[in-house]
Amino acid sequence: MDVSRYRAETPGCAEVIHFNNAGAALPPAVVVDTVVDYLREEAVRGGYELAAATRGRFEDVYASVARLLGARAEDVALADNATRSWQAVFYALRLGPGDKILTCRSEYASNAIAYLQSGARVEVVADDATGQLDVADLERRIDGNVKLISMNHVPTHSGLVNPAEQVGAIAERAGIPFLLDACQSAGQLDLDVTRLRCGALSATGRKYLRGPRGTGFLYVHPRLRDRLEPAMLDLHSATWTAPGRYEVDPTAKRFEVWERNFGITLGLGAAVDYALEIGLPAIEERVRVLAARLREALGALAGITVHDRGARKCGIVTFSAAGLPSPEVKERLAKAGINTSVTHRTSAQYEFTARDLPEAVRASVHYYNTDDEIDALVTEIGRITAAA
Amino acid sequence: MDVSRYRAETPGCAEVIHFNNAGAALPPAVVVDTVVDYLREEAVRGGYELAAATRGRFEDVYASVARLLGARAEDVALADNATRSWQAVFYALRLGPGDKILTCRSEYASNAIAYLQSGARVEVVADDATGQLDVADLERRIDGNVKLISMNHVPTHSGLVNPAEQVGAIAERAGIPFLLDACQSAGQLDLDVTRLRCGALSATGRKYLRGPRGTGFLYVHPRLRDRLEPAMLDLHSATWTAPGRYEVDPTAKRFEVWERNFGITLGLGAAVDYALEIGLPAIEERVRVLAARLREALGALAGITVHDRGARKCGIVTFSAAGLPSPEVKERLAKAGINTSVTHRTSAQYEFTARDLPEAVRASVHYYNTDDEIDALVTEIGRITAAA
Repeated sequence: MDVSRYRAETPGCAEVIHFNNAGAALPPAVVVDTVVDYLREEAVRGGYELAAATRGRFEDVYASVARLLGARAEDVALADNATRSWQAVFYALRLGPGDKILTCRSEYASNAIAYLQSGARVEVVADDATGQLDVADLERRIDGNVKLISMNHVPTHSGLVNPAEQVGAIAERAGIPFLLDACQSAGQLDLDVTRLRCGALSATGRKYLRGPRGTGFLYVHPRLRDRLEPAMLDLHSATWTAPGRYEVDPTAKRFEVWERNFGITLGLGAAVDYALEIGLPAIEERVRVLAARLREALGALAGITVHDRGARKCGIVTFSAAGLPSPEVKERLAKAGINTSVTHRTSAQYEFTARDLPEAVRASVHYYNTDDEIDALVTEIGRITAAA
Repeated sequence: MDVSRYRAETPGCAEVIHFNNAGAALPPAVVVDTVVDYLREEAVRGGYELAAATRGRFEDVYASVARLLGARAEDVALADNATRSWQAVFYALRLGPGDKILTCRSEYASNAIAYLQSGARVEVVADDATGQLDVADLERRIDGNVKLISMNHVPTHSGLVNPAEQVGAIAERAGIPFLLDACQSAGQLDLDVTRLRCGALSATGRKYLRGPRGTGFLYVHPRLRDRLEPAMLDLHSATWTAPGRYEVDPTAKRFEVWERNFGITLGLGAAVDYALEIGLPAIEERVRVLAARLREALGALAGITVHDRGARKCGIVTFSAAGLPSPEVKERLAKAGINTSVTHRTSAQYEFTARDLPEAVRASVHYYNTDDEIDALVTEIGRITAAA
């Protein structure tokens, strides 16, 4: 992988050491330029006028996302973030009391809050010895009341990769919809909806895909789509055909709303194309190697505990320092020009409660990070903990 | 009003004659520059890092929108468009069979589709002799089953201004929530939620406010807010306080989602500030005068029918040419460097059906348009119809 080329194409690499890729990654120049060029042109031609003149470019964004996921363009919907994409499917299922949802212990707050709001019974599948979702426990819990299997692929607060392919196979055999939150995996793992066997998959542009903030997308299998009328409709997701009638869009666009910022939509397309050009298998492998290096170096530091578990791990590295609150570690790293973030209990109550986890520092690596940057991070953490 | 200054501050004014302000207006340079500067800085500092460092600027956007509406900042929510803002309140009302919704004949497709989807009974209030919603008919229709009065302030397809203040007074007396769709009025009319007496008001940034595409906002009265748990929740609109519990945000932020593009959010703030500096009463007056001039000139052209009705009219001017399809008129105007748009039956089925309206050309004027531009438009329309 030509890392120096990708760094040269990323203006932020010259300014900061960025290990907050699971928050929002540094975009390559082509992403920002695509957005900016469009906004400047829109301002002198008119928003609707430029959109009409460049319609094909927007359709290309669906095609790019489809390529990323091994899907068809008509099974892709775009949104302003991953949350809306996920909500569009979850709330369309109209679950309620009497229904059962199976999820993972590492589940994310936004999803868990929606489960609770639905009134359905939530069962949290146990972890296996490696720390990932226990597929045998999942299988045991399936009964006629289970209406949804829903989990994250990669949690927000740990380096775990959940066994999504195995879960997908179980869901498929049982005929239960499988909703996969790929917010943290899209852009760092090689995704394929056929292999994942998911009914729906949601993700964001700003994280590992290096796209603009305020972008997200959704894949929905046609079989699931045809069962679902979205919980909210507008004149784009449906057509007002007569005063007392409407027709829902036949494609995944039924899960969208009409109005969006077309500049950042094109920026998302540019980010996906950039990732596809490098190749997701190569990205996945480099991210894995860099994260393993970081975990190993952190593990060798006195007073540092690494919290990541799982048979398979990804680019998210979480740790805490004995006697030092994680927000303080993050602040001191920021002063040294190193971006990280902090995990929060309110983002992952199931797991924080079950494991009695502390809030941790999250250092999420990407392929454009270097060994030198990892060494600089570890050195700085050593300095901070030694001074404490 | 210093129109030449505002035109000089609008790069698009030198490139095109823009009468599609009800679609998306030409933004002043400060709006695009605000977005672009933020996106460029984000790319070299990190999305979360810059957002944290400039938190106060985002709070200022709420304050600006609040000033625009005569509201408090904590009663304002932001979204990626007006539709989401409107949906956030409508679907939280959880109306269904047995409930009654009163709306106007000029109602917009997205709203009408949501009414139909809810299963509630929709009653379309008659127009009065001037063409606006008949407030006496509205009052007659109120009974114990009416759970919502909901209408647009200005329709998408006509120059009408509905009598929102009077409707608000009736709703308040009856104790029925009043949801006002101000998508086409925000930025061209002087709005004040106290005077309008609305429970909620939704609007967009891209139209008469001259903000970025992909921005919208919502006002909700605290009394209505406290009754409503949003139909969808995430970790921003609610907090996951314990594995089995969540708490909904106490402010209007309960109607938001967490992730957004912060650059275009700041662009919305810049657009609102720009409008406030000019002054909404002055904008409203100039838009009214320019639109009246255009209607008068069009009315004097052979073969042209102007379709706007209402005791009070706004900047939207709609007309059709005998024997010439409106899309063709629009295309020919575009070739002459003049942007307009076309109204669609599927956007306003109640009114198109009741009045048997044709699809019309929509020329929506703004304060930065000039008498010369209006004369150029009228001359061009005369040329097109004479040649037909």
